[in-house]
Amino acid sequence: MDSSPVKSRALVARGPFSEGKWAMEEVTLREIREDEVLVEMVASGLCHTDLHCGDTPDDKGVPGVYYPRVLGHEGSGYVQKVGSAVTHVKPGDPVLLSFTYCGHCHVCKTGPASHCTSFFKINFTGGPVFTPQSQPSEALGGLFFGQSSFAQHTIASAKSVVNVGGLGLTRDDLKVLAPFGCGLLTGSGTVANVAKAGPDDAIAIMGLGGVGLAAAMAAKKAGCRQIIGVDRIPARLALAKTMGATHTIDTTTSGDLVEALRNAADGLGPTVAIDASGHQPLVVAAIEATRYMGRIIQVGAGMPDAAVTLPMQTWMDSGKQYFGAVMARCNTAEYIPQMIQWWKDGEFPFETLVQSFSFDDWEGAIESMIKGTVVKPIMVW
Amino acid sequence: MDSSPVKSRALVARGPFSEGKWAMEEVTLREIREDEVLVEMVASGLCHTDLHCGDTPDDKGVPGVYYPRVLGHEGSGYVQKVGSAVTHVKPGDPVLLSFTYCGHCHVCKTGPASHCTSFFKINFTGGPVFTPQSQPSEALGGLFFGQSSFAQHTIASAKSVVNVGGLGLTRDDLKVLAPFGCGLLTGSGTVANVAKAGPDDAIAIMGLGGVGLAAAMAAKKAGCRQIIGVDRIPARLALAKTMGATHTIDTTTSGDLVEALRNAADGLGPTVAIDASGHQPLVVAAIEATRYMGRIIQVGAGMPDAAVTLPMQTWMDSGKQYFGAVMARCNTAEYIPQMIQWWKDGEFPFETLVQSFSFDDWEGAIESMIKGTVVKPIMVW
Repeated sequence: MDSSPVKSRALVARGPFSEGKWAMEEVTLREIREDEVLVEMVASGLCHTDLHCGDTPDDKGVPGVYYPRVLGHEGSGYVQKVGSAVTHVKPGDPVLLSFTYCGHCHVCKTGPASHCTSFFKINFTGGPVFTPQSQPSEALGGLFFGQSSFAQHTIASAKSVVNVGGLGLTRDDLKVLAPFGCGLLTGSGTVANVAKAGPDDAIAIMGLGGVGLAAAMAAKKAGCRQIIGVDRIPARLALAKTMGATHTIDTTTSGDLVEALRNAADGLGPTVAIDASGHQPLVVAAIEATRYMGRIIQVGAGMPDAAVTLPMQTWMDSGKQYFGAVMARCNTAEYIPQMIQWWKDGEFPFETLVQSFSFDDWEGAIESMIKGTVVKPIMVW
Repeated sequence: MDSSPVKSRALVARGPFSEGKWAMEEVTLREIREDEVLVEMVASGLCHTDLHCGDTPDDKGVPGVYYPRVLGHEGSGYVQKVGSAVTHVKPGDPVLLSFTYCGHCHVCKTGPASHCTSFFKINFTGGPVFTPQSQPSEALGGLFFGQSSFAQHTIASAKSVVNVGGLGLTRDDLKVLAPFGCGLLTGSGTVANVAKAGPDDAIAIMGLGGVGLAAAMAAKKAGCRQIIGVDRIPARLALAKTMGATHTIDTTTSGDLVEALRNAADGLGPTVAIDASGHQPLVVAAIEATRYMGRIIQVGAGMPDAAVTLPMQTWMDSGKQYFGAVMARCNTAEYIPQMIQWWKDGEFPFETLVQSFSFDDWEGAIESMIKGTVVKPIMVW
């Protein structure tokens, strides 16, 4: 096996994006370890979490923020080489990349691994993978979410690698499926796997980015009675209507949001509310509006100092549940092929949300997401 | 059928107990309605909720507090007469009395009825049932939890009445089983029905009154790996040890409670924490100490202004759930006979917790509970 160092290109963040400190660089990859996979990337989705980690100054002490590093955590590609302990993929296999986990904490042992007690540390910290060809002694961080997909070749944690061979996918398919590993999985899986929503449910979706819109599609597929999309951007609300929302609420014009949510859901409030906004006032309204015995599921992280306060007595009486679900608590090896099948069957028409950019136009892709003109930009090599 | 008014005796609260305003009075009962049952009471358990409603001044605007009324919500007895719409019991049947519910809200339609949206209003308010024989124009409140069991004869909501005929119970059995309708049901049922705890669970029980000790018994029956009893009264901690607790924590000497809880549970924290104290600092500690993906179940109501604050980001990562469970979300018609079977099989040895008093010594019963010398006083006619 050829063991000469792999030379490639990567989008390197050497400081905040808005300070002009990202650049495409020629890089060299270190050798893979026994539990790692070398992947030739086809495409990568772009997510707000990339900007959180890549547009925050590193002198603020924000956990998970450091430079220089290669970000990206929604990738697709082909396996080029596997470590000695890797058995679930082989060179040539098409793969999608998702999150990683420690594999030995009490949560990993029983699942769901997305609530691994080291999830944040492992996924947001990663470790050195690349060096600039121009300065071989400098280490560039990789393994962001076990993958750092903003590179033409990358080293991925075997746990991040989902084998999608045998599903008849072409290279063009991989170009559009890249975002399945994070946002689309989180949105749809929270409805299907966590809420296990069905025809009896009135579901509210707070925040209609990629996660929220994927949740709307999954709620439609699940046959939910009411699907209530909440956002402040009219175009997103209109998009939600086309993807299954039976009601939309524009928070800039709705007046009392709790009342609007209740009115849209039998006058009683939603049975399930999914917060894909991370915006504390929306979460508080969802908690208040949700009906007795309902569930409020937090899938957007929110600001580090954001918190919600629950009054013990009425909370107990209500039987409501408020909890977080990371990455929809998915077993990615099972759930990602499932999503692909839904997409093939026409039940997960997410292409409406995406727009492709060449990796050379990475700045255009990022700007489109910041401006909100594209829900989910995909960058293609 | 004899329709002359039923004359009996009842313990009437005309103001707070501590102001000497409770007294045994001769009373007359109104006629039963179609969905009510006339019960000759055998015994009644005493619960802190009776004192909450019967020892709080009524000029403070505390919801559910008014005078004069008959309290008591853990009763046993024999049916004397049933309303025209009542089919599940007949005169002569032995019964235990538990909570009631509206029967038509969205929660009642699907269950659990203990989270009825009108639960508080219906159970804590009740309605007029008795009049003093000395002053027939005065209305005394009854139907507390659909029963007002502190009367020798009472009118119960049919929904509060659980038929325990066919289980071979004697009158002496009914004397000890009276408390099954509230505290013992809540404690044991939360472990069995809500947490569905098993051998993989490390369970923490905050507060070792009747509810907490019943939870300890149920956790032992369920084979929980660790059963951690938390209280500040050494005698209660010692009692918990005899009823299944593998570890006890005395909050007056434990130092950091979060650390103590974690140490007692694999160093990771409990998988399930049941708060039977309603004491906010214990709830906060339980939430903090519980391990990732663990559940914190609130079964003690707490003060009206008590609240807990959850940080959105770490709460999401943890996957923990904090929720309330009223009356263990039981279907009482199924669960109370189940508890009786466990008791017969020696798996629910709750007699250690109870002490019987004659109803004439109602003051002694109440004082024993206030002083904490008896966990669960039972007053017998």
